[in-house]
Amino acid sequence: MFTRQLKINAVGFTCRLAGLVCCFTFASSLAVAEELAVESPGKVLKVVCEVKDGVPVYSVSRLQRPVIAESRLGFEFKNGISLGKGMKLAGSRRDSVDETWTQVWGEEKRIRDHHNELRVDLAGVDDSSRKMSVVFRVFDDGIGFRYEIPMGNDSWEITNELTEFAMTGDHRAWWIGAYQGNRYEFRYTDSPLSKTEKVHTPITFETADGLYLSIHEAALTDFSSMALWRKSGNTFEADLYPWSDGIKVRGTGNIVTPWRTIQIADTPGGLIDNYLILNLNEPNRLEDTSWIKPGKYVGIWWEMHLDIASWGSGPKHGATTEKTKKYIDFAASNGFDGVLVEGWNHGWEVEWGDSFNFTKAYPDFDLPYLAKYAVDKGVRLIGHHETGAAVENYERQMDAAFALYEELGVRAVKTGYVGHGQNIVRTDEQGNKHREWHHGQHMVRHYRKVVEEAAKHHIMIDAHEPIKPTGIRRTYPNMMTREGACGQEYNAWGGPRRNLPDHTTILPFTRLLAGPMDFTPGIFDLLYEKERPGERVSTTLAKQLALYVVIYSPLQMAADLPKNYEAKPEPFKFIKDVPADWEFTEVLHARIGDYVTIARKDRNSDDWYLGSITDENGRILQADLSFLTPGVKYTAEIYRDSDDADWDKNPYGMVIEKKQVDSTMKLPLRLAPGGGTAIRFHPAK
Amino acid sequence: MFTRQLKINAVGFTCRLAGLVCCFTFASSLAVAEELAVESPGKVLKVVCEVKDGVPVYSVSRLQRPVIAESRLGFEFKNGISLGKGMKLAGSRRDSVDETWTQVWGEEKRIRDHHNELRVDLAGVDDSSRKMSVVFRVFDDGIGFRYEIPMGNDSWEITNELTEFAMTGDHRAWWIGAYQGNRYEFRYTDSPLSKTEKVHTPITFETADGLYLSIHEAALTDFSSMALWRKSGNTFEADLYPWSDGIKVRGTGNIVTPWRTIQIADTPGGLIDNYLILNLNEPNRLEDTSWIKPGKYVGIWWEMHLDIASWGSGPKHGATTEKTKKYIDFAASNGFDGVLVEGWNHGWEVEWGDSFNFTKAYPDFDLPYLAKYAVDKGVRLIGHHETGAAVENYERQMDAAFALYEELGVRAVKTGYVGHGQNIVRTDEQGNKHREWHHGQHMVRHYRKVVEEAAKHHIMIDAHEPIKPTGIRRTYPNMMTREGACGQEYNAWGGPRRNLPDHTTILPFTRLLAGPMDFTPGIFDLLYEKERPGERVSTTLAKQLALYVVIYSPLQMAADLPKNYEAKPEPFKFIKDVPADWEFTEVLHARIGDYVTIARKDRNSDDWYLGSITDENGRILQADLSFLTPGVKYTAEIYRDSDDADWDKNPYGMVIEKKQVDSTMKLPLRLAPGGGTAIRFHPAK
Repeated sequence: MFTRQLKINAVGFTCRLAGLVCCFTFASSLAVAEELAVESPGKVLKVVCEVKDGVPVYSVSRLQRPVIAESRLGFEFKNGISLGKGMKLAGSRRDSVDETWTQVWGEEKRIRDHHNELRVDLAGVDDSSRKMSVVFRVFDDGIGFRYEIPMGNDSWEITNELTEFAMTGDHRAWWIGAYQGNRYEFRYTDSPLSKTEKVHTPITFETADGLYLSIHEAALTDFSSMALWRKSGNTFEADLYPWSDGIKVRGTGNIVTPWRTIQIADTPGGLIDNYLILNLNEPNRLEDTSWIKPGKYVGIWWEMHLDIASWGSGPKHGATTEKTKKYIDFAASNGFDGVLVEGWNHGWEVEWGDSFNFTKAYPDFDLPYLAKYAVDKGVRLIGHHETGAAVENYERQMDAAFALYEELGVRAVKTGYVGHGQNIVRTDEQGNKHREWHHGQHMVRHYRKVVEEAAKHHIMIDAHEPIKPTGIRRTYPNMMTREGACGQEYNAWGGPRRNLPDHTTILPFTRLLAGPMDFTPGIFDLLYEKERPGERVSTTLAKQLALYVVIYSPLQMAADLPKNYEAKPEPFKFIKDVPADWEFTEVLHARIGDYVTIARKDRNSDDWYLGSITDENGRILQADLSFLTPGVKYTAEIYRDSDDADWDKNPYGMVIEKKQVDSTMKLPLRLAPGGGTAIRFHPAK
Repeated sequence: MFTRQLKINAVGFTCRLAGLVCCFTFASSLAVAEELAVESPGKVLKVVCEVKDGVPVYSVSRLQRPVIAESRLGFEFKNGISLGKGMKLAGSRRDSVDETWTQVWGEEKRIRDHHNELRVDLAGVDDSSRKMSVVFRVFDDGIGFRYEIPMGNDSWEITNELTEFAMTGDHRAWWIGAYQGNRYEFRYTDSPLSKTEKVHTPITFETADGLYLSIHEAALTDFSSMALWRKSGNTFEADLYPWSDGIKVRGTGNIVTPWRTIQIADTPGGLIDNYLILNLNEPNRLEDTSWIKPGKYVGIWWEMHLDIASWGSGPKHGATTEKTKKYIDFAASNGFDGVLVEGWNHGWEVEWGDSFNFTKAYPDFDLPYLAKYAVDKGVRLIGHHETGAAVENYERQMDAAFALYEELGVRAVKTGYVGHGQNIVRTDEQGNKHREWHHGQHMVRHYRKVVEEAAKHHIMIDAHEPIKPTGIRRTYPNMMTREGACGQEYNAWGGPRRNLPDHTTILPFTRLLAGPMDFTPGIFDLLYEKERPGERVSTTLAKQLALYVVIYSPLQMAADLPKNYEAKPEPFKFIKDVPADWEFTEVLHARIGDYVTIARKDRNSDDWYLGSITDENGRILQADLSFLTPGVKYTAEIYRDSDDADWDKNPYGMVIEKKQVDSTMKLPLRLAPGGGTAIRFHPAK
């Protein structure tokens, strides 16, 4: 379906704008200058939409105070037509929703979608065939809006999105730059927003008044991804990643854009337990989800990053039958669900890209045997598709590649798109080659196609070097997890780009607001001076455990080598215990870039888990255990930094202790510099 | 006793420094360059004291990271002798304390004093008669240190305190300037510390790393009060308020200084439930405390501020027998403990000061009759001693004035020291007059003398225009409350100095860290356009109620006129219910200058109360009710801002509602701009 759509482009915009009946059933008729407003169900947020001198604008206020000042709306098309000026109000319609739905898996089982909707219909003043509707959904903890533009069967090309986000001050911001070489893998910058130019979303703000905001998008399915361009002052404009010919977005038929989202909370933690992005995505389209299973995995992976083994064939080849069997044995005896094996297929020795063959294993890797060996042990191989960003090569083989895995009982595939910037080769119908961005519409379509194709083969996806998450996991719950930020691997070879101790205290308030991340925590040998001199993990051992709770991923890796776990069986127990699917999530402490404490309840037992992490500064935080079920006595298995632990000087300093606790107690968490605490709360027998 | 000491001064420093046996029993003998360190009981804080090139210095670290960099210690005396250079370590002694004591009244009934002590003895390198000990007490949540200098029977004059507080960065600070005209009554400035010059304590800091610090002093009894002077960079030096002749402190005999204190916490709330200041004061010296009773009062006071009535005699005289009877009736029928009457005594018509007579009532105020009338109704008059800063006049009459009240059954006296800057007249033995600061040693002695004299007459003190609190209330629990910041009165006539909506969200983290404040909340007629055009209260009505919980005072006023309460009986119920003495205090939310939520348990019932306030921005905060007793059902009587309330546009918008709650629940608090929420939790029948 999507491959066919890919061919329909660059046909040009025509003016035959047929109204869609469902969109333009006017519930009210309006004078030109009238202002339309919609409040959230609890009257916390209010959106006002109006047309000023022909320009459609919106603004957002919260509890009587402005949050987003007057900001433009609209699009411009290649043929010179603008939906951002010469417009008038043509009608409006309202809706209210209060329903609760169940995630197939996730950080919270039941999610309430409670919002008021205002649909504003606009038409050209001189030319009523120019039509655009803006649909606002206003929740108590954020807003989303999208455009619906009736196009009949016409093709169209968007040259500019006019949407603005006019911030009310030079807020403190946490951000990564857009249009840089290496995808989303950068350290976050913490600066006044006036230091930004073009940035990726989600971008998170703290106002001087103590309000927390995050701008992002939801349901990015067939559009270019939205970066933000601070053109002047405190106002950002949507900046769509262009095609190689400069067109921002192209298509045929009615336009329904992704949702532009603004999450708004009084506390940093209020951004985390905020399900706006998911609520703005379409419900699950997969009828049978029985094959979708969150879980934990180990893999032949970290040893390549440490340069102990190689992806390609040769004397150091990692993906051998013998070694994989050992990993499967290790996984089986320690309760893991999957074993990832990278470098199993032909194509790694030359420059990555078209070289890759997704069905042909290296001779020393007996894929069918190992797949069966794993299943017999109650484990499954996790497949691996590194594309080297050569998506045409991948798409040619994709069906066969997924079919092969499906036949072998593989249920999850990790994909990879190593490559930089505008390096995606696209061949047009004339055979000309173009270079596209990783984050433009071309690749958005590809990433989505992979998810849909995988679903047909009952395969879960863990995408590395992905497009950013926008909540597609609700619609396709086989879209499990992804990378899209600096993961653990930067500690192996990052050099000056290695993760600093504050990295994982920023992620929960930025990248993770968009969705799960396959960060791959759990490194136990923190220093590896011999393998990677000058590199190291900048955390304590206890913090590695805490990351399993703090960084949510439905597929959660235990990233280190089995021998390093076998050398430290006591802390390894926590990794064996911790689940990857939760019923409840509560944020206990949160300060962006400094510390965060999250408690989550296992979806399949009565256990609770707590993870608390800090940056380079030690902390003492009081954990109120009121999240526990009242009246139940729990054994708290506490994995904490020792009193003299320090990520820099004493990273292994750790104390494991048990305490009897209940919901009425407060537990002091003592986090070492660069440290953390991980706790399992198990109902006492 | 203190008046006698006042005469012993300016005698000059002699070198006969006799060692005190109790101070100089050395437990260890040290090499000259040796460093001495002491950790807090939980190994959170560490103080290092050493001598570098003859200069004694200390530093403080927390969880392996510096908090106070190397900072000088010592004093200089008038005769040129310095205890800040040419010193060597002479010995040390250690002690550990873990004991829990009971406050006669307060915000927390039982307080744990858990600290390690290090006493460092220093002596002059060339002249071992120069001796000084520094005693450090190190708690997990702060440190205190004081100097003990053996002086035998000699007189001495300190010209400079050398103590430094070297901050580790240009921290954000909340502060008021020292050496200004009007005592402590200023808006707090929120700025980097580099914008400070000379400031009062407590001064509160937030570091970029998210650590919270407050510098103050404890047990200021016969010394000059300490301001801080940022002489350069990020380093403050102790700056003692001088006598009029430039001498900073003078005395005879051994010197024991107040404690220099640094409270340290990971959260703003951690500064509030921090009892360092009290722990560093001496235990209660009053054997019988049965006459000390926290409580609430009304009074003939606000009407003078609104210019409806006058302090002085005449047609508008406020303190008439007839009106006072009505106030007593109102107090009795609404459960108040006291009735304050200002302007009852001769002396108000001329320039305030020596004019005041503290035993002679105006003819239209029948003091004995009213005192008895009150007692018969179960209420007591609250006495009033406005000195106009003429303390010699007051000290001449003090004994008689307290005796009069004691005889009449008055149990509490509000004192006042209206006057500016260096305007305290002191007459020396030769009859020469000198002008002293409000905050120098002369006045410190006076304020203390008042407390001691009052105690002899079984009288509680509520001091306005006071010396700052330093925890004396532990030693003399009749020292109930005081002003020492901009109170409610600034809303009556402050004009451009009126309290802004954020004022009361700064006080809990600054002034209130030092001790209780008689802020006088509870204004119900918020606008009084007729009486004071252009003035108003910058809060919602609900916020006025919340202040009763947020701002602790053991004597708590209902400041408005009875008719304004009678006009709003529903919200008035909260003021009638709320106690002024607590068993427990918990901070639920805290952000300096933005919002704060405090829950406190009544000491005399099973009720809990919650107060939550915000600045000019609305907030939605989740209150975890886990402070309530588990298993008990409570009726929550909630006084909250209406959804459309706003201090500026709709200050009276208020909803009073009841909910059944228990300790397992979370209650969202919706605070309007400039608003608040007050809740009483009463066990359900």
